[in-house]
Amino acid sequence: MASSISDWSPGWTTDAPRPGDWILAISGSDILKPEQGWLLAANDARLGDRANAAVSVGVLDDVPVYVTELDCTDGAGLEPVALRDALLMMEQAPAELLSTGFQVWQWWRDHRYCGRCGLETGFHPRERAKWCEPCGIPWYPRLAPCVIVVIRRDDRLLLAKNARARHHYYSLIAGFVEPGESLEGAVAREVKEETGLDVANVRYQSSQPWPFPHQLMVGFFADYDGGELILQEDELAHADWFLPGDTPPVPPQTTIAGRLIRAMESEISRGGIAL
Amino acid sequence: MASSISDWSPGWTTDAPRPGDWILAISGSDILKPEQGWLLAANDARLGDRANAAVSVGVLDDVPVYVTELDCTDGAGLEPVALRDALLMMEQAPAELLSTGFQVWQWWRDHRYCGRCGLETGFHPRERAKWCEPCGIPWYPRLAPCVIVVIRRDDRLLLAKNARARHHYYSLIAGFVEPGESLEGAVAREVKEETGLDVANVRYQSSQPWPFPHQLMVGFFADYDGGELILQEDELAHADWFLPGDTPPVPPQTTIAGRLIRAMESEISRGGIAL
Repeated sequence: MASSISDWSPGWTTDAPRPGDWILAISGSDILKPEQGWLLAANDARLGDRANAAVSVGVLDDVPVYVTELDCTDGAGLEPVALRDALLMMEQAPAELLSTGFQVWQWWRDHRYCGRCGLETGFHPRERAKWCEPCGIPWYPRLAPCVIVVIRRDDRLLLAKNARARHHYYSLIAGFVEPGESLEGAVAREVKEETGLDVANVRYQSSQPWPFPHQLMVGFFADYDGGELILQEDELAHADWFLPGDTPPVPPQTTIAGRLIRAMESEISRGGIAL
Repeated sequence: MASSISDWSPGWTTDAPRPGDWILAISGSDILKPEQGWLLAANDARLGDRANAAVSVGVLDDVPVYVTELDCTDGAGLEPVALRDALLMMEQAPAELLSTGFQVWQWWRDHRYCGRCGLETGFHPRERAKWCEPCGIPWYPRLAPCVIVVIRRDDRLLLAKNARARHHYYSLIAGFVEPGESLEGAVAREVKEETGLDVANVRYQSSQPWPFPHQLMVGFFADYDGGELILQEDELAHADWFLPGDTPPVPPQTTIAGRLIRAMESEISRGGIAL
């Protein structure tokens, strides 16, 4: 089930899973991984009655895929693999399927009640949404757009160590887009808040879904445009300007941060000083 | 209070408004516009006790701004202006402030109860979020990322008439990003679903907040890469390829659709046939 050779597409149905369909079994922030691949057959006895509570995620090689949560798998031969490890460390993992499955499950769990009136929600008649009939509100899966930016100053780039990170990586400035902001506006505000710096020439690079819990990462390059480094202490433990090839440990290429850093290193190395 | 000369920044406080603070008064999808500018003083008698129910939005020229909803303004000298008209038609309107205010109010109204457990939410201790103590879930203002794309084929661009639109404009293919998708993946999927076409060379152009009700529009250019036009009938009433300067009516420059269309017309006119 390598993601590169399978045909995966997200989708939605209110039909219950049939015996030959696939189920992604999760437990908290772990995938419960069977002996082969990442999915269980819907009639696998280890699912018990949880197959009936499964929610549609999409279609893999013409077979419907669902997601459900299992409480306990002691001795069942299902290996718990943290979603974060699967996406960060395992390049053969079907990242899009796993990421979509986790977010669909979370949507299902978190919109059982209407946030406006507190009553239990039902199904939307046509779309993947929960629906509050009295309020007339659809509750779609949430996505939180988040900007992430690598800042260039002459032939160096800014890397920062997060104040709350459990790992040893140096990474990039990032933060959630606020209501009323453009992506570029969010980049400028986050950089100013966290580092005290001004940036110019904010330019889009790429995007990546990031299901922790439901982020859509949008990556940018920017150029230093003034100010002194004054770190927001509850966000950043340390930050500095680094030369390409002479950086502290940075996130792997499976993350948008890792790819942005390497892309900026290439740009600096190819072009010398651009400012 | 022209937005170009005022200093507006979004922000958050749980402090109640004081008499000299500003209040954005809304009623449904209308702004209740006073005689001058767009905001009422917090001690304006027409607010009644609704000033006490106001929610923090940000700071305008060092003065805190709040938002609240009023039910009835008959004879009060407040003019209802549809938010959509203000943002589409009135270039002097403080778009970012109005857009943020509407979204903050909607967030406030729509997360009174926890979607997971149905209990009433409280305040998050530090951030602009509602907070469910039993579930440990923060409920931030929602933003729905949405892609919008102008497709080029030789020296023409694709314009489409929405099946449900009340106006006469031809506009662009657009749709919400799904969980697990990149922005570029969402562009390809939406174009395929709505038109049957394949696209290549998907390239970012710009972004715009769009508070109907809480969209973040992300605009792209793309090149036609195969397929015949087969319209999704419940989405599109008509679509065709048009030459620059010879298009049906298109949305105004205050919208990202209008700006993307004009930018693509310029690209084609400047460069001739790129494919």
